[in-house]
Amino acid sequence: MALDVAEARERRLLLEELQEAWPVLSPEERLEGLELLTHSEAERFLLGLSAREQAELILAGSPAEGRSWMRLLPPDDAADVIQEAPEEEREGLLALLDEPTHKEVAALLAYAEDDAGGLMNPRYARLRPDMSVDEGITYLRRQARERLETIYYLYVLDAEQRLLGVVSFRELFAAPPDKTVRDIMHTDVLTAPEEMDQEALSRLFAEHNLLAIPVVDAERRVKGIVTVDDIVDVVQEEATEDIQKFGGMAALEGPYLEVGFWQMVRKRAGWLAILFVGEMLTATAMGYFEREIARAVVLALFVPLIISSGGNSGSQASTLVIRAMALGELRLRHWWRVVRRELAAGLALGAVLASIGFVRILVWESIFHVYGDHSLLIALTVAGSLVGVVTFGTLAGSTLPFVLQKLGFDPASASAPFVATLVDVSGLVIYFTVAILILSGTLL
Amino acid sequence: MALDVAEARERRLLLEELQEAWPVLSPEERLEGLELLTHSEAERFLLGLSAREQAELILAGSPAEGRSWMRLLPPDDAADVIQEAPEEEREGLLALLDEPTHKEVAALLAYAEDDAGGLMNPRYARLRPDMSVDEGITYLRRQARERLETIYYLYVLDAEQRLLGVVSFRELFAAPPDKTVRDIMHTDVLTAPEEMDQEALSRLFAEHNLLAIPVVDAERRVKGIVTVDDIVDVVQEEATEDIQKFGGMAALEGPYLEVGFWQMVRKRAGWLAILFVGEMLTATAMGYFEREIARAVVLALFVPLIISSGGNSGSQASTLVIRAMALGELRLRHWWRVVRRELAAGLALGAVLASIGFVRILVWESIFHVYGDHSLLIALTVAGSLVGVVTFGTLAGSTLPFVLQKLGFDPASASAPFVATLVDVSGLVIYFTVAILILSGTLL
Repeated sequence: MALDVAEARERRLLLEELQEAWPVLSPEERLEGLELLTHSEAERFLLGLSAREQAELILAGSPAEGRSWMRLLPPDDAADVIQEAPEEEREGLLALLDEPTHKEVAALLAYAEDDAGGLMNPRYARLRPDMSVDEGITYLRRQARERLETIYYLYVLDAEQRLLGVVSFRELFAAPPDKTVRDIMHTDVLTAPEEMDQEALSRLFAEHNLLAIPVVDAERRVKGIVTVDDIVDVVQEEATEDIQKFGGMAALEGPYLEVGFWQMVRKRAGWLAILFVGEMLTATAMGYFEREIARAVVLALFVPLIISSGGNSGSQASTLVIRAMALGELRLRHWWRVVRRELAAGLALGAVLASIGFVRILVWESIFHVYGDHSLLIALTVAGSLVGVVTFGTLAGSTLPFVLQKLGFDPASASAPFVATLVDVSGLVIYFTVAILILSGTLL
Repeated sequence: MALDVAEARERRLLLEELQEAWPVLSPEERLEGLELLTHSEAERFLLGLSAREQAELILAGSPAEGRSWMRLLPPDDAADVIQEAPEEEREGLLALLDEPTHKEVAALLAYAEDDAGGLMNPRYARLRPDMSVDEGITYLRRQARERLETIYYLYVLDAEQRLLGVVSFRELFAAPPDKTVRDIMHTDVLTAPEEMDQEALSRLFAEHNLLAIPVVDAERRVKGIVTVDDIVDVVQEEATEDIQKFGGMAALEGPYLEVGFWQMVRKRAGWLAILFVGEMLTATAMGYFEREIARAVVLALFVPLIISSGGNSGSQASTLVIRAMALGELRLRHWWRVVRRELAAGLALGAVLASIGFVRILVWESIFHVYGDHSLLIALTVAGSLVGVVTFGTLAGSTLPFVLQKLGFDPASASAPFVATLVDVSGLVIYFTVAILILSGTLL
C-alpha cells in the first residue's frame, strides 16, 4: 500500500512534468513523452488536449496509433480534430473511424465550427414517454453499453424523434419505480436551433445554469446535445478573442508561443497601421494650431498629458460597455441610459483630473518657476480642457460601441481604433480652443 | 395537442419577456414578475440567477417565500447567497435552512468564496470498493432519493472517507453486473486541495476536460466536488475582471447597470488619476526639449503620432502576454523566449509604421508644402523615431508583466499604467534625441 502511494506519486510527477514541458515540445517529442505513460494515462492526457494538438499528434503518430486515438474521441471531438487538420489529411482521418461513427462525424462536419450544430454531440440519452421508471433505467443501461457519452439529462422523444420533454438522471433515479416517464418529465425544455452562434449559446448556459442543452431542427427533432464542458472552452476562447481585440489587434488563432512569427506580426501590423493612419490626423490637427504653438511653446508641453487623459477615459468607457454587451447585460435599447450615466461620469472624472492638474501646475510654478508669468491662466487652460477632453472621451468611448453594433460591425474589434483616433484628434481641438479662449490677449 | 403547443409558446414568450426586462426591474417588480410564472417555472428561473440577485429576491420576498427558496438551493449556492447578503441578514438566512443543510452550509461559509472549498458542493455520489456493480446502482438510487445533487462521477471511499478511486456513471452503468466497483474504478484521480484558488481550478478543468473534480483535505478525505457548471461562471467572471483591468480600471463588482454610480466613478477615478499623475512626467520630459520645440515648431506636430504609436504597440504586446499568462500558456521561465520574439516583432512593426510615416510626410510635402525646406530630414527623424519607439513599446509591454509577476503584483492590473507612462515618456526622449542627432546644424 505504501509502495502503491509512492509509485502513484511518481507517476503523477511524470504526468505533471510532461504537462509543464508540453507547449515547447515538437510533435515528435510529444509522441515520445506519451510513450512514457501507461495506456490509460496517455488516453486521458490526449482527451485533455486541444483539438489542434490532438490533430498534430494523430498525424505525427503511426497509422495504428492514429486509428486507436481517433476511435477514442467522441464524435464531436473527432469532428473538431478533422477540422483542425490540413485540407488534404481530412479524408484520411475520417476513414480511421468505424462505420457508425464515420456517419455521425460526417454529419457534424456539415455544420460551421462555431454553431450549436458544430459543438453538439449526437450521442445523447433518450427515453420513450410510456416506459416505466424501471424500464427506463434498464433501457439506459443498454444505451450506456452501446454508445452513450454523457447522461446528464434524458430526453423523451416520440416516434418521429421529436422532443416531448426532459428528465434529469437524478429524477429518474429517485422516482418510484412504477411511475411512467411521462409522469415525471418536464415539458418546458429549453432548446437551441442548429445554427445558433456559440457565443449566444454560452449566454444561454450562463442564464439558465444548465448542464446540457438539446439542439433541435425546425421540426423540434433532436440532433444532438451541447454540454457545459464544451462551453467552458467556448467562453475562454471568446474572452481571449475579445481581450486581443481590446488590445488593438486581430485575434490570434492559437497559443502565443505556438503561433508562427510572421502570422503574428501580420495580425498585429494590420491594426497598428490602421491606428497609425488614423492618428496621422493628429499631425494635421496640430498643424492648424502651429501659430499658437510658436507663440506659446508652453502649450506644447501639455499635449501628451491632455490626449492621453482623453484616451484613457475613452478606453475605460468602451471596455466597460463592450464587455457588458458581450455578457448580455447591455443591449442596444439601453443606449440612452448609458449616455446619461457616462455624461455624468465623464464630468465627475474630468473634474477630478482637472483639480489634480490645476494644483500640480501651480505647485510646480511656485517651486521651479517653469511656466512664466501666466501660470494661473495656463493652469486654468489645462484644467478646463481636461474636463472637456475627459467628458468627450467617456461619451465617445461609451456610445461608439452602440453605433458600431447598430451598423452591423463587431463592437469589440472596431471600437479601439475609432475611439483612439476620434478622442485624440478632438482632444487637440478642445485643448487649443480652450487655450485661445482663455489666453487671447495675454500669451496668444 | 395543438392547444398545448400554443400555450407552451405563450408561456415561453412570457418567460423571455421577464428575462429581457430583468436587469432594469426593482426587487419588488421582480417579485411581481415571478408571480406570473408557474411554481416550477419560477423555481427554475430563480436557480438561473446570480447569487447576488437570488439574495436580493429572498430578502425582498415574504418569510415563507424566502424559506422555500433557500431550501430549493443546493448547499454551495445557498452559501453563495448568504455571502452576497448584508452582514446583518446572514444569520437569518442561515436559519431558514433545514438542520442537515444548515450544518453543510455553515461548513462551506468557513472557506473563502474564491477557493475550491468555497465553490464545492458537499453532496457527491459515493461508493464502497467491494460492492458489486448492481449493488452500486441500487445504493446510488438511495442516495439520489435522499440528497444527491449531481452524478457525473462516483467516488469510491474507504471507511475513513479517504479517496480510493473514481468510476464514471457511464462506466458503472455499462459494466457487467457481477464485477465489483474495485474492478472497474480508476485509481489515478485528479484532486484539488481545499484552498486552491478558483483561477487555478478553472485551468485544471480546461487542461483535463473533466466534469467534476473532488476537493480533498491533507489526508485525502473528500470534502466535496466542484462541478464544471460552476467553473463556467468563474471563467466568465475572471475574464471580465481581466478585461476591466486592461481597460485601466479596478474590476467592478457587478453588472454595469446595477453598480451604483459613485462606486463606479470611484473605481474608475482611481486608475485614471494614477495614470494621470504618471503621464505628468511627459510634461516634464517635454520641458527638457522646450528649446528644440521653440526652434522647430514642426517637431511638436508629430508628438501625438509618435507617442500613440508607442502606446498602441506597448498595449498590444502587454495584452498578448498577460492573457497568455492567465491561460497558463506562458510562465515566468519563458521570459527570455518572449523578449527575443518581441524584439524581432517590435523591429518589424516599427519598420512598417516608419515606412508609412516616411511616405506620408514626403507626399504631404509635395502636395501641400507644409513642412518647409527640410522635409526629407523631418521624414527621416519621424521614421527613425518610430522604429525606436515601437520597438521599445513592444519590449516594455511584453517584459513588464513578467517583472510585475516576479515582484508579486498582479500583471493584469498593474501593467497598463506602467506601460503607458514608461512608453510615453521614453517615446518623447527617443523622438527628441533622434531629432537632435538628425537635425543639428539644419533645423536645430
